[in-house]
Amino acid sequence: MIFYIMGQICKVVGFAMLLPIIVGAIYGESHVVTSFGIPFLILMIFSIISTVKRPSDKSFFSTEGFVSVAASWIMVSAVGALPFVISGEIPNYITALFETVSGFTTTGATALTDIESMSRSCLFWRAFTHWLGGMGILMFVLAVMSSNDSRTMHMMRAECAGPNVGRLVSKSSVSARILYGIYMSLTVAEAILLFCGGMPLYDCIIHSCSSAGTGGFSIYGDSIGHYDSLYIEMVIAAFILLFGVNFNLYYYLIIRKFSMTFKNEEVKVYFGLIITATAVITLNIMHLYSSFGSALRHSFFMVSSTITSTGFATADITQWPGFSQTLLLLLMFVGSCAGSTGGGMKVARIMILFKTGIKELKYIANPRAVVTVKMDGKPVEKAVVRGALSYMVLFMLLMAISLLIVSFDKYSIEESASAVITCMNNIGFGVGRFGPNGGFSETTVLTKLVLCADMLLGRLEIYPIIMLFASKKR
Amino acid sequence: MIFYIMGQICKVVGFAMLLPIIVGAIYGESHVVTSFGIPFLILMIFSIISTVKRPSDKSFFSTEGFVSVAASWIMVSAVGALPFVISGEIPNYITALFETVSGFTTTGATALTDIESMSRSCLFWRAFTHWLGGMGILMFVLAVMSSNDSRTMHMMRAECAGPNVGRLVSKSSVSARILYGIYMSLTVAEAILLFCGGMPLYDCIIHSCSSAGTGGFSIYGDSIGHYDSLYIEMVIAAFILLFGVNFNLYYYLIIRKFSMTFKNEEVKVYFGLIITATAVITLNIMHLYSSFGSALRHSFFMVSSTITSTGFATADITQWPGFSQTLLLLLMFVGSCAGSTGGGMKVARIMILFKTGIKELKYIANPRAVVTVKMDGKPVEKAVVRGALSYMVLFMLLMAISLLIVSFDKYSIEESASAVITCMNNIGFGVGRFGPNGGFSETTVLTKLVLCADMLLGRLEIYPIIMLFASKKR
Repeated sequence: MIFYIMGQICKVVGFAMLLPIIVGAIYGESHVVTSFGIPFLILMIFSIISTVKRPSDKSFFSTEGFVSVAASWIMVSAVGALPFVISGEIPNYITALFETVSGFTTTGATALTDIESMSRSCLFWRAFTHWLGGMGILMFVLAVMSSNDSRTMHMMRAECAGPNVGRLVSKSSVSARILYGIYMSLTVAEAILLFCGGMPLYDCIIHSCSSAGTGGFSIYGDSIGHYDSLYIEMVIAAFILLFGVNFNLYYYLIIRKFSMTFKNEEVKVYFGLIITATAVITLNIMHLYSSFGSALRHSFFMVSSTITSTGFATADITQWPGFSQTLLLLLMFVGSCAGSTGGGMKVARIMILFKTGIKELKYIANPRAVVTVKMDGKPVEKAVVRGALSYMVLFMLLMAISLLIVSFDKYSIEESASAVITCMNNIGFGVGRFGPNGGFSETTVLTKLVLCADMLLGRLEIYPIIMLFASKKR
Repeated sequence: MIFYIMGQICKVVGFAMLLPIIVGAIYGESHVVTSFGIPFLILMIFSIISTVKRPSDKSFFSTEGFVSVAASWIMVSAVGALPFVISGEIPNYITALFETVSGFTTTGATALTDIESMSRSCLFWRAFTHWLGGMGILMFVLAVMSSNDSRTMHMMRAECAGPNVGRLVSKSSVSARILYGIYMSLTVAEAILLFCGGMPLYDCIIHSCSSAGTGGFSIYGDSIGHYDSLYIEMVIAAFILLFGVNFNLYYYLIIRKFSMTFKNEEVKVYFGLIITATAVITLNIMHLYSSFGSALRHSFFMVSSTITSTGFATADITQWPGFSQTLLLLLMFVGSCAGSTGGGMKVARIMILFKTGIKELKYIANPRAVVTVKMDGKPVEKAVVRGALSYMVLFMLLMAISLLIVSFDKYSIEESASAVITCMNNIGFGVGRFGPNGGFSETTVLTKLVLCADMLLGRLEIYPIIMLFASKKR
C-alpha cells in the first residue's frame, strides 16, 4: 500500500519534470533531454512497477500514512536532485540534494554561489520544487486520485502544516482539489500582476512559484532587490502574506461563509503581528534610510518575507540595528498560519502554547480553578494542547541533536545554531555567516545531510520522519 | 501576612550581615562598620515594624506564598547590594544590584573587572550570598520559625527548584531543618577537605560557600585555575556534583532507606550524563593537552561546573573545539537534579519532557493506545507533566522578551542571546564576549536590570515573580 502511494507520487513528480523540458526547449537548451529525461524515466519505471497491481489490502492507519509521506518526500528529493547533477550545473550530488530538499521543503537556503550562471531550465525546476512542495506533493496526488476516502485523511494530516487540519468537505480528495485550485489561482494572479509591473514573463513565473511556496529561491544574487521596483516589491510582499494565511479561509470566502473568515483568531493575530512589527521596525531603522517611506517599504517587505519564512530580501538586514534583527528572528520562529504554505512554529500553535502558559499560572494560583484553553471561542481539545506542547519539546530536542552534529563542522556555536534554526524552521537564511547571502556552500557533507534532515523534519512537522525510521526498526 | 514573612526573612539576612562584619574585624577593615552596619539597621528596623504584631488572619494560599517569596527575594537583593555601594567598592548601585542578584540566585555572573582588589569582607559577603541563596532564604526562615504548618508548604514549593517537592516529613519546618542540616554539613566537609589540601582558611570558606550554592563566585580572576592543584580541583568538582543531587536523597540515606536513593531514576540519568559527557569531551579535547590525564582532569572539572551551572573554570573553553562547547552548552540547559542547589531546567523536568514526547509519538501512531508517563516506576500525575511543559513554554517566552530588550544594547544577537540564556539558567557565563571572563561590566543599566529580572525568574522558576506583578495589577 505504501509503495502504491509512492508510485502515484512519483508519477506526478515525473510529469512535473516535463515542464522544465518544455522550458529548456523554448530557450534552446539541449542538455534538458538527458538531464531531465533520465530522472523522468526512473520515476516512470518505478511508478509503473509499484502501481501495476492495486493492493488488495486497503486497510490503512495513520502510521502508514505518516510513513508513506515521509518515504515519498525523501524519494522525491533524491530523484529531484538528479537533473542538477546530470546537467553538470551542480557536480556534487550532496550539494544538489541539499538544494532540492531546500526547494521541496520551501526553505530556500542555497548551497550555490553563482546562481545567475545556471541554465534557465534548471532554475525553473529549482523554483518549481517550491511550488510543488508548498502545498504538498501528496496533496496533489490526492487531488488527482479521488479514490477511497477513509485512508487519505491520515495522509493529508501528515503533510499539512499546523496543529489542526480542518476537514473542508466530507471527501478529502475534493478538499485537496479545492485547496489546489485556490493555490493555483493565487499563483497565476501573482504572475499576472508581476507581468503588469514590467517583469519579464520567465521571471514572473519563477517568482510566483517561489512565493507561492513561501520558499525564497530567486534567479538573481540580490533576490527581489534586483528589480528595485516599489510595485514589484509590494505585489510580492502582499502575495507571500496571502500564501501565509490558512487556505481554509479562502474556501470559506468562496462559499460566502464570511463570518468563518473574519472570526478566525489566528488570522487576526497574524496580521496584528505583521502591522506591529512593521511599525516598530520602521521606527527602529528610520535613521538608516533617506525617507520614512523608504524605511517603511523595506520594513514591510522584510517582515512579510520573514514571518512567512520565505527568505526574499530587498535589504541587508545584517546592517540593521540588533533590535530589528532580533524581532525578525522571533517572527521566523512564530511563522505563519496553520494550513498555509509558510514555515515556522505556526501562529495557532504559539497561541495555544501562550494560552496554556497563562492557564497554568491561573492553575498554580488556584489549584481548584477549572480553566480551559479556548480558540475562536471554542475550547481546544486536550489532545491538541498536549500535541502543541510535545511538538515544541521534540522540536527543541531534535534541534539540540542536530546542533551537536553540526558543531563538528568548522563554525562557531552561534553560526551552527543559526544554520540549524533556519533549516528546521524552513526559513532559508540565518544570522552571521549564514545570512541572506548564503554560506551553505562551504559546509561539509555531514552538515549538509543533517541540515537536509532538519529541513524535512521542519516541513513535515517531525512526526512522519520519526515514524518512518521507528517503523523500520521494528 | 506577606509583610510578616518578609520581616522574618529580613531578620535572617540582617543577622547574616553580622558575619562579614566579623570577617572585616579579623582583617582590620574599618569600613565594615558603616558599609554593613547601615543595611543591618535598615533590615532590623523593617523586620521589627513588620513583625511587631502577628497577623490575626493566618489564612494563606499558594498565591500569597509565591508573592511573599518573590517580594522577599527582591527586597533582600536591593538591601544586600548596599554594602558594596557604601564601602565604595562598587560605586554604581545598579552594578552592585546585579552582583547581589547574581549572588543570591547563584548565577555567578560578575559585572566587576577587578575582583582581586576588593576588601575581604565584601568578597566574603559576595560568596555568602551564594550560600544563602543556594538552599533558599525562605527555607532558612522556615527551619527557624517552626510555626503553623499548612501554609509553609506553599512557600517551600515556591522557592524550591524542580517539578516536584517531596514532603520529607509531615511538618515542613522539620523538613527545612533537615535539609539545611545536610546542606551545612556538606559545606563544612568541603571546607575541611580543601583546608587539608593546603588552601588558606579564608579561601576555603569562600569556595565552599560558592560551591554549596553552585554559584561560582571566586576571589581570583582565574577562578579555581589559580591554585593549579589536582587535589583542590577534584574536591571542588566532586562537591559541586554532590550539591547538584536532590537533597531528599541524602535524607533517605541518613534514615537508611537505601532503596529510595538507588532506585531514583533522575540521579542515574544525572550521573550517566556526567560520565558520558566527560568521556566524550576528553576524547574531543585530547589533542589540545599534553596527556590523557590532563584532558580528563579539565574535562571532568568543566562538565561538573557546567551541568550544575556553577561556573568555576580551570580552562578556557572558548579554545576548545565547537563540539565540546556545544555539548557543555546543552548540559547547562539540562542542569542538575530537582531539589538541589543547581540551576538549569533540571534533569527530572527534561526527563518528563522527553518521555512525554515519546508518548505523543506513540499516541499519534495509535490514537487508541493509552500511554502514561512514568518516573521511578510510578505514573507521573498529569498536572506535573502539564506543569513541566508549560514551564518550558513560559521559559522560552520570557527568554524571547528579554532578548528583545537586551538587543537594544550594543551587542550582536548571538551575544545578547548568550547573556540572556546564562542569566535565566543561573549559569554565570556564556559564549563569546560573555565567556568565563565576564563582560557584564560593559552592559547598559537597562540590560543589567533585565538580566537581574531573568536571574530571579530563573532561580525562583518563573511563577512567583509573575504572581507578584500579576497580583499587584489586580
